[in-house]
Amino acid sequence: MTTYTAPVKDMQYLLHDVLNVSAMDTPGYDDLDRDTTSAILEEAGKLASDVLEPLNGPGDEAGCRFENGLVTTPAGFKEAFDQVREGGWTGLDCDPDYGGQGMPHLMGAVLNEMFSSANMAFSMYQGLTHGAYSAIHAHGTEQQKATYLPKMVSCDWTGTMNLTEPHCGTDLGLMRTKAEPQADGSFKISGQKIFISAGDHDLSDNVIHLVLAKIPGGPEGVKGISLFIVPKFIVNEDGSLGARNGVSVGKIEEKMGIHANATCVMNYDEATGYLLGTEHKGMRAMFTMMNEARLGVAVQGLSQAEAAYQNGLAYAKDRLQGRDVTGAKNPDGPADPLIVHPDIRRMLMDQKSFVEGARALVMWAAVMIDRAHAGDEQAEALVSLLTPVLKGFLTDRGFECATNAQQIYGGHGYIEEWGMSQFARDARITMIYEGANGVQALDLVGRKLGLNGGKTVMGLFETIKSFIKDNDGNEALKSGFLDPLKAASKDLQAAAMYFMQNGMKNPNNALAGATDFMTMFGHVGLGYMWAQMAKVSMTALEEGASDAAFHETKIATGRYYMARQLPATTMHLARIQSGADPLMALAAEQF
Amino acid sequence: MTTYTAPVKDMQYLLHDVLNVSAMDTPGYDDLDRDTTSAILEEAGKLASDVLEPLNGPGDEAGCRFENGLVTTPAGFKEAFDQVREGGWTGLDCDPDYGGQGMPHLMGAVLNEMFSSANMAFSMYQGLTHGAYSAIHAHGTEQQKATYLPKMVSCDWTGTMNLTEPHCGTDLGLMRTKAEPQADGSFKISGQKIFISAGDHDLSDNVIHLVLAKIPGGPEGVKGISLFIVPKFIVNEDGSLGARNGVSVGKIEEKMGIHANATCVMNYDEATGYLLGTEHKGMRAMFTMMNEARLGVAVQGLSQAEAAYQNGLAYAKDRLQGRDVTGAKNPDGPADPLIVHPDIRRMLMDQKSFVEGARALVMWAAVMIDRAHAGDEQAEALVSLLTPVLKGFLTDRGFECATNAQQIYGGHGYIEEWGMSQFARDARITMIYEGANGVQALDLVGRKLGLNGGKTVMGLFETIKSFIKDNDGNEALKSGFLDPLKAASKDLQAAAMYFMQNGMKNPNNALAGATDFMTMFGHVGLGYMWAQMAKVSMTALEEGASDAAFHETKIATGRYYMARQLPATTMHLARIQSGADPLMALAAEQF
Repeated sequence: MTTYTAPVKDMQYLLHDVLNVSAMDTPGYDDLDRDTTSAILEEAGKLASDVLEPLNGPGDEAGCRFENGLVTTPAGFKEAFDQVREGGWTGLDCDPDYGGQGMPHLMGAVLNEMFSSANMAFSMYQGLTHGAYSAIHAHGTEQQKATYLPKMVSCDWTGTMNLTEPHCGTDLGLMRTKAEPQADGSFKISGQKIFISAGDHDLSDNVIHLVLAKIPGGPEGVKGISLFIVPKFIVNEDGSLGARNGVSVGKIEEKMGIHANATCVMNYDEATGYLLGTEHKGMRAMFTMMNEARLGVAVQGLSQAEAAYQNGLAYAKDRLQGRDVTGAKNPDGPADPLIVHPDIRRMLMDQKSFVEGARALVMWAAVMIDRAHAGDEQAEALVSLLTPVLKGFLTDRGFECATNAQQIYGGHGYIEEWGMSQFARDARITMIYEGANGVQALDLVGRKLGLNGGKTVMGLFETIKSFIKDNDGNEALKSGFLDPLKAASKDLQAAAMYFMQNGMKNPNNALAGATDFMTMFGHVGLGYMWAQMAKVSMTALEEGASDAAFHETKIATGRYYMARQLPATTMHLARIQSGADPLMALAAEQF
Repeated sequence: MTTYTAPVKDMQYLLHDVLNVSAMDTPGYDDLDRDTTSAILEEAGKLASDVLEPLNGPGDEAGCRFENGLVTTPAGFKEAFDQVREGGWTGLDCDPDYGGQGMPHLMGAVLNEMFSSANMAFSMYQGLTHGAYSAIHAHGTEQQKATYLPKMVSCDWTGTMNLTEPHCGTDLGLMRTKAEPQADGSFKISGQKIFISAGDHDLSDNVIHLVLAKIPGGPEGVKGISLFIVPKFIVNEDGSLGARNGVSVGKIEEKMGIHANATCVMNYDEATGYLLGTEHKGMRAMFTMMNEARLGVAVQGLSQAEAAYQNGLAYAKDRLQGRDVTGAKNPDGPADPLIVHPDIRRMLMDQKSFVEGARALVMWAAVMIDRAHAGDEQAEALVSLLTPVLKGFLTDRGFECATNAQQIYGGHGYIEEWGMSQFARDARITMIYEGANGVQALDLVGRKLGLNGGKTVMGLFETIKSFIKDNDGNEALKSGFLDPLKAASKDLQAAAMYFMQNGMKNPNNALAGATDFMTMFGHVGLGYMWAQMAKVSMTALEEGASDAAFHETKIATGRYYMARQLPATTMHLARIQSGADPLMALAAEQF
């Protein structure tokens, strides 16, 4: 019952009017002219709408099946996956040396949003493969790269990441999976991994598992973890597929959502594995994959909000119920459409202002990633700082938006047939996997704030301050955008200051406010994006842009975000400044 | 995998230490001494834990089946329902003239929380019957009461409410179901109703549908709606069951949750119906049922938060992951339990402080209902004011708490086997049915604020103000409780003032802030409850109460609510004061 139309116009606006990418001094960006990106986005959007989206609801209903040790995806998935592969979409931002198209990561992020909006469970098969590709690309030997990457770029072979075990999720130091060294330089991997997305399926000829395990005799805890390549089928020297490896699916999980993506228990029974990167430095190598995965999950949060918003909006325009209290808007009909009601507007504007702001933040971060790949250390640090904010904030809000879009449907929102429940159920996982959002907040406050001695975060504060100062004389921008941004940004800095002053004597004073801080940071991030977009659109209007309605809508949407969302920072600051005591007052047995 | 233990101690504390019910001048309350209520609650708690809770997960998994026109509930439901009926629990607060036990509504509300925490889908069969019972009790003829009530008190027959049609939910004026008068004084009902909870099932011998329909020739819109009793089986004059009536189930819906409660499409095809109450005054009669249902749904919100909290807490104490940054708490184990981590505490304290505050507010409102039943008009007005706040705020927060309890489980929270997803999925409907929460907010701002010319709400503000003033010299209470309550209450009054001053020229200025106002109101309500509980517990400690740990925990939990939740009112006020413009700036086609 749902539909999806890729927001190509908004993406083009961000690429060219806001970021002005083709003028940027970033490798690969000079090719990104307006026509080229338009052609790519239109084509990808068609695939998303016409092929992936129609499989989303049926895929949720059918789910994956597990029979005779093998996983089958829902009807139509294999054909659609072949179509995505054949179109070259799986290698869009991969290395041309291995068959990729060599586009910047920025374009990959935009593509990811589209595919994920259309069918999140489906797009994960490709997304996880990309993560595994990146880890092998960064840490593999030349031979490993030559063996695996071309097939993974084309998704002839797909990838997974294996971290979690039944007794150890976030705390990977507790890991038990073993890797016994063999005479030929390979390892025998034994143990059980759980929650392995895309762990097995019928979409590809081989599955390349990246598995964290401990080599006996190595250091205790996370310092003794290594990363291994463990293919489902051993790859012969000529590249053909050999014997089945000692890895099998124990079961697939019944989940709240993403039913069409198989979440597997993987059993490793002396499976042959190949060390990826350095012994005992597996965490570092895995983080290549995990940081990419976290940004991918942030995009998933945004993607479900966008898809849910589109459908919520269509329903709000279509469903006739009640009358506009200020006067009938559809006097000849039995009632007015839902969209006339202020509380329905509130939900729609929350969603619209979130998705457009979040998309800007994602694309800005993606630019930083491309710069980091080109060796820009400041950009790399900034991405590192923003990663937990993007993952945590965009998925918290993404779920909230999906839930509110469901709310617009009233009772129909609760009925699976209408499709709105799926957006909320699918979005829910984004707050949990790749590090639960509480862990993201911890990472932000405990590690990222102190990055480069605090210079990275101070640099971002300065950037925002300079933007406000540089536009000081811009009266149109001032009250609606710059003033609220300034106030929110001050709150954020006051919170950081509180952590510095009070976290030293008791680190819990900082950790108690971690989630509130992450949320404030997200609001300031989106506020900064909105202020920039408003400036761009105001300038465009002054210069007589042909599409005035688009720019006016953009400005009004931003104004909403600033007026209705940014006041949250005051609340979060008050909570943070109440410190650890209210949280920690009770002994565990007093609960 | 989940468990439930009825919070009898907390309920006893509220009944006796906080409300001091047996000293109240309310009919029926003098029997509510500590021992009597303890015996009732302990017994009900056992039934909830031992009989209803074990069916909750399996009921969700199996769902209801619809075959050959009849609905079957999950295995075990029929036996459990018989056990509840035979224990006399279905008539606890019903009229003794019809076989009820004549307890106050207060006890019914407490019972409702327990049964709903243990198994929400199950307890709905009983809850809806109670609503139909109340409508017939209030509006039926003596003959109707004699015919239906005894069987409904015992749940030999169950009840439903039929409002919604495919094209009309909130806007009942659009209704099409017809009621043609017959020569014998009965009516022939024809039309389709949807979303009928417990519309058919195998738990009772008969289903008594209360159906809204239009008598041809009556006034347009909601003023021409009448209410009818339409039994599944016609009741003979001797009380035995006669012919099958012309009402049938079209299908049952696949829903996000409450799988074990059949949500039916009901087709009425010249079904025999009997007018309940006055012609064309059906909305008034239905509101008897709906107000009760709304409070019941508020309790459902609380109940899912409580059940999810209990399981989240157990997991947080049990699951070992990571170390307390201030020093290991479980040095001999491989890691510390989750509960040492501040961000886990934050979620647990949010839940604990919400459920205990919400329970107090529900029980206070239940007392007002009992007083209203005894003819106290002020109490009736106060309940009328509080109903949308309870329904909207308690279900919004209840869902949030259930979602956060799921979050504590990490990946396991997303796997159905662990049971945490069900709490969130079941809680989700409470925000939608019996009037979506946006409609509650509209009711609060558009109608309830102006009740008795604003005297009711002003009276409540005065009550809170007097409490603060009366305890002015209480230093222990001041900074942690009275000051934040005063600040939040001021924000709430400022918001009401904004509506008055700006709603006249444009009603959208009030409606745009409706949901924010409802949320603020809820926070102030819970803050007021917490301040009272803190006072009671501080006094108990001063007087050397034996259970000091209980009271200390209570005070610390309240302190948390005041410090971490009440600052939200400032944010909501700022949003409200931004008015309608940011919401309404866009034309529908600009979205």
